[in-house]
Amino acid sequence: MRRHDHQTTTQADLTAGAVLAPYLQERAAEFLRSLRLHREHSASSDAGTRTAEEAAAALRRSSRRIGGTLHTFRTVLDPAWAEHLRAELAWLSGTLAREHAYATRLNRLLEALHHVSGGPLPAARKATGAGPHGPDDKDRAALGVGAARAGALLERQLTLARTRAHSAALQALGSSRFHAVADAVALLASEVPLATSAAAPAHEMLHDPAERAEQQLLAAVAALPPDGATEPYNEALDAPWHRTRLLLRLHRYAHEVVRGAPDPVLTAAGRALDLHRDAAEAAAAAASAARTPRIAPATAYALGVLHADQRHEAGAARGMFRASWPYASAAVTTP
Amino acid sequence: MRRHDHQTTTQADLTAGAVLAPYLQERAAEFLRSLRLHREHSASSDAGTRTAEEAAAALRRSSRRIGGTLHTFRTVLDPAWAEHLRAELAWLSGTLAREHAYATRLNRLLEALHHVSGGPLPAARKATGAGPHGPDDKDRAALGVGAARAGALLERQLTLARTRAHSAALQALGSSRFHAVADAVALLASEVPLATSAAAPAHEMLHDPAERAEQQLLAAVAALPPDGATEPYNEALDAPWHRTRLLLRLHRYAHEVVRGAPDPVLTAAGRALDLHRDAAEAAAAAASAARTPRIAPATAYALGVLHADQRHEAGAARGMFRASWPYASAAVTTP
Repeated sequence: MRRHDHQTTTQADLTAGAVLAPYLQERAAEFLRSLRLHREHSASSDAGTRTAEEAAAALRRSSRRIGGTLHTFRTVLDPAWAEHLRAELAWLSGTLAREHAYATRLNRLLEALHHVSGGPLPAARKATGAGPHGPDDKDRAALGVGAARAGALLERQLTLARTRAHSAALQALGSSRFHAVADAVALLASEVPLATSAAAPAHEMLHDPAERAEQQLLAAVAALPPDGATEPYNEALDAPWHRTRLLLRLHRYAHEVVRGAPDPVLTAAGRALDLHRDAAEAAAAAASAARTPRIAPATAYALGVLHADQRHEAGAARGMFRASWPYASAAVTTP
Repeated sequence: MRRHDHQTTTQADLTAGAVLAPYLQERAAEFLRSLRLHREHSASSDAGTRTAEEAAAALRRSSRRIGGTLHTFRTVLDPAWAEHLRAELAWLSGTLAREHAYATRLNRLLEALHHVSGGPLPAARKATGAGPHGPDDKDRAALGVGAARAGALLERQLTLARTRAHSAALQALGSSRFHAVADAVALLASEVPLATSAAAPAHEMLHDPAERAEQQLLAAVAALPPDGATEPYNEALDAPWHRTRLLLRLHRYAHEVVRGAPDPVLTAAGRALDLHRDAAEAAAAAASAARTPRIAPATAYALGVLHADQRHEAGAARGMFRASWPYASAAVTTP
């Protein structure tokens, strides 16, 4: 990938600490700003709810970046402190992410249902009507009934899950565990607990950890199963993709630290893997809803359509990732 | 498309009748051979059934080619005779096609069900299990139960339809209407009822009708809805594709007559449109089976998955057609 080539020029006269500390401090300041915003808006009006949601998203974003940086560059930091705070930030961002994930999933599924059951029919009609199984508009009408019921079922289930996740998030934000995390981040904003090795030049101390994050990502990408032998409905095959998503994130953050700016190629690739995750989880939610006892066949049918549709979306997201991925393409595309 | 450019050289000294008559006579001889083969094998052993099926396919093939040629080049033939025989051959090949279509549809759906519900699971397992809707193998197991039932339901329905179509085909082949068709084809094998204009040079008399068939096809292709605004579940949007399939067939046969050999590009494009039709009809059959009263939700769910899967296959076939289509690509791909 050779992305660190002129890092040595830009950071030639900086210590590792002088590169790492400002990055962490800026993220810590963002964390504290988002937290304040979230507290001010979390129990107010609808507009407040929206601001609270955005604040929670910003809180997750800074948590992930701080946590990722603590993980990748732990050798330049106080290692016990870094590992502890990383774990606590992972707990926090995981807890906050759940509410958002249910909301996103419900939106995605309702949109897909709408797409599947169709808006107004166009003027074009079929020319041939061949036999009792010839395609006709009955299929969409039948799907419409089931789609409405499936939508209501998903809305009930995912709204319930979301409400629970919301309570859990509020509870977490009020806990002493969270206050300890907030205190640690507040300290980080003013002073970063560096190891003595952080006084060495940045290009010596940061290059290897960043390189390791990159190599782990490249290995994961190379190990992705080829798309030729597609088993679009086999969710067990999603695991290496989810793993790649996490490794890409770590590499992306390390790149931000070392180069001082995000890499648009990595951003696009990360977005494709996020889409893959979203579609795969939406498909699983449709399958899970279809296991609800005593649902009508029409509802189950619409959920089946939805499941397949989202599995295909997951496949499309894989394609999008491959298309966005400019490195080591031979390893990516050959079986 | 400029495919008739050197037709004028190869057929410079032939009359239209001298090009058209041998083509029709060969197809008529094929028809009679297939009919004999079909009669010899239609009520015998399993191996005989297979031969009878192949004979029926050959019978359909020659019927379609004779009918298409009679239609496209009707101005060079006795028009009343051509139109009558064309209609009778359409009736015959339509009747014979139904049995084959049900068999193909069932195979396609059972294969898709197998694909969807999965063979043995690979060793790779998911790494993350996030929340109550996290993807897991339950989805496939649940699908497995429904898939088996859906398979049994489709097998029952499509086998019944196939059996009925088989009886209808046998009845048709024993009817006086069919005997009249067979007599007309036998006459055609020995003498083609040409119009007086058939004595004019081939390049004068055959060029225009062949050109018209081509222009109708190109217009239909240009009018295909763009794939960008996909509504994969809107079966009403299939109609222009089915129409294009029929026009491509007419153009393909006209090309065979005029150039003396099939065009591999047209063959590939035709195959993609056949696939499109098969997938669209399989999706409709899954939707139709899902309307069976009192089916279990798991069965309905599997049929929903199948429906969506076949709609995506139909979409893939459209892509295949576009990829195979080398002419007027601007008209094909722009909205």
